[in-house]
Amino acid sequence: MTTLLRVDASIRIDGSVSRALADSAEAAWRAEHPDGVVVRRDLGQHPIPSNVWPAVISAKMGFDAAPDADRAESAGALALAEDIVAEIKNADAVLLAVPLYNYGISQHVKTWMDVLLAEPELAADRPLAGKPIIFTLARGGGYGPGTPRDGWDHATPYLERIFGDVFGMNIRKAVAELTLASVTPAMAELVPASKIAEEEAHVSAREHAIAVAKELTGAAA
Amino acid sequence: MTTLLRVDASIRIDGSVSRALADSAEAAWRAEHPDGVVVRRDLGQHPIPSNVWPAVISAKMGFDAAPDADRAESAGALALAEDIVAEIKNADAVLLAVPLYNYGISQHVKTWMDVLLAEPELAADRPLAGKPIIFTLARGGGYGPGTPRDGWDHATPYLERIFGDVFGMNIRKAVAELTLASVTPAMAELVPASKIAEEEAHVSAREHAIAVAKELTGAAA
Repeated sequence: MTTLLRVDASIRIDGSVSRALADSAEAAWRAEHPDGVVVRRDLGQHPIPSNVWPAVISAKMGFDAAPDADRAESAGALALAEDIVAEIKNADAVLLAVPLYNYGISQHVKTWMDVLLAEPELAADRPLAGKPIIFTLARGGGYGPGTPRDGWDHATPYLERIFGDVFGMNIRKAVAELTLASVTPAMAELVPASKIAEEEAHVSAREHAIAVAKELTGAAA
Repeated sequence: MTTLLRVDASIRIDGSVSRALADSAEAAWRAEHPDGVVVRRDLGQHPIPSNVWPAVISAKMGFDAAPDADRAESAGALALAEDIVAEIKNADAVLLAVPLYNYGISQHVKTWMDVLLAEPELAADRPLAGKPIIFTLARGGGYGPGTPRDGWDHATPYLERIFGDVFGMNIRKAVAELTLASVTPAMAELVPASKIAEEEAHVSAREHAIAVAKELTGAAA
């Protein structure tokens, strides 16, 4: 039995392109692994509270980072952090759906990544090395080479740094750009291009999910 | 009367280099403006809750981002967001003390920046353009050109993007690297270099604060 960890970060449900792309990837994965399990963590709907990471770090490093927190809160934070680390260690593959927010990483995703990185084993012993991770990324504008906003996507390089360089995971990406075209009058002429980009991203999400699913089947065979 | 907005982000008090650098800058600024006011927001000790930005965005955009939140919570989030925007608009200068956490932006600073960027006026009408902002930055390792971790500081370029390119503020930086040398056995040989870097950063923080203070005096004269 294979396990897919799906992590969502959009603060929206309806209209979220990153979630829709992850839906496509998840459906394709389920078709290949009908008896598989999908574990979900929804950072957009149920963010990790802002005191969790400081509580974990202060407990591990032995300083007082959360003077207002009582012991029960701290114990809850440590238990949550253990769950979060166990989820990614126990998954056979990861599906991470992240919108670009304000040209940077989602605050809720950074909070999750900080909790992962508070477990030194993940960077030191690299238990996640080689594990497949599919990013489904949504960006409101265009950030390609030569565009005016080339270089303004500060989220994707950071995600690649941590999940690729630090954890050693095997990254695949399905990206939809121009997702705000249909609701932004100044982007009206980009609506047709945005529709094409979105459909291509769904195709890419499905292809990545099928490829990962087949890799896992091959590994188990 | 001049106002300095000081924003801290370290989750530590004792041993925080970014806070110590900001202390140096603040003291130098106060010496130039003895009747000035320092407004503080401590994101490290009192993080903005993780539900605030989604509540603000959902209220402004008219979608339901926070299904679990009641109306009182949402009203509180909107009031806090207004305070946060007013603080930076009303300040004559800003002092922002930020550690590099896990090669990226502090989760608590991103949360604060998201709240600022939820006010469209700041990017559209640029009321902060030309306003001085001093970053006091602390990094545990070395990230200079040619070092193995060159390019791994994903926080500073993002801070410059938003406060510089988007808001048009006038950025000055005081940076201490290698701050983890004294507590990391593998970095033992870097301890002397780290001490020098830290002292130089304090000098730089004081110089920037004095220059900003004199600019403000000149502007008021």
